[in-house]
Amino acid sequence: MDKWVERKRPVRLERRFEFETYEATRDFLDRLGDFSESSERFPDISFGKTYVNITLRPEVQEDLCMADYQFAEGIDELFI
Amino acid sequence: MDKWVERKRPVRLERRFEFETYEATRDFLDRLGDFSESSERFPDISFGKTYVNITLRPEVQEDLCMADYQFAEGIDELFI
Repeated sequence: MDKWVERKRPVRLERRFEFETYEATRDFLDRLGDFSESSERFPDISFGKTYVNITLRPEVQEDLCMADYQFAEGIDELFI
Repeated sequence: MDKWVERKRPVRLERRFEFETYEATRDFLDRLGDFSESSERFPDISFGKTYVNITLRPEVQEDLCMADYQFAEGIDELFI
């Protein structure tokens, strides 16, 4: 969770993940897709051959809440 | 190919694809991943629940060339 950066205007959490290979990047994106579907949350994602950037906006209100941090932690667990 | 926008500084091609569902978005991303691997080209991609934005930079030189436009056309064919 400590690797996420909290930004303002608009309020959001951001984290960049880096990988050795495109295959590892795709595997992470696959896990992230499954996690998004099961969580019914679909963050904005940008990626290239060996990186993935995730932007997470508050789910309900204007501010980040526990559910948002928990979702971010869930994403961290996919990075194995 | 006519739906790609050519931009400068840096020179690049961009196109936004929109989908009805997250499932359709994922299916497109899967086809795009396979196409990237077989082409050995890995454009910058950003996506959310129902959209995918692709940014394609020149493969070799400073300017876009036939190989870049052909790669873009190959991506168009994945959008079915």
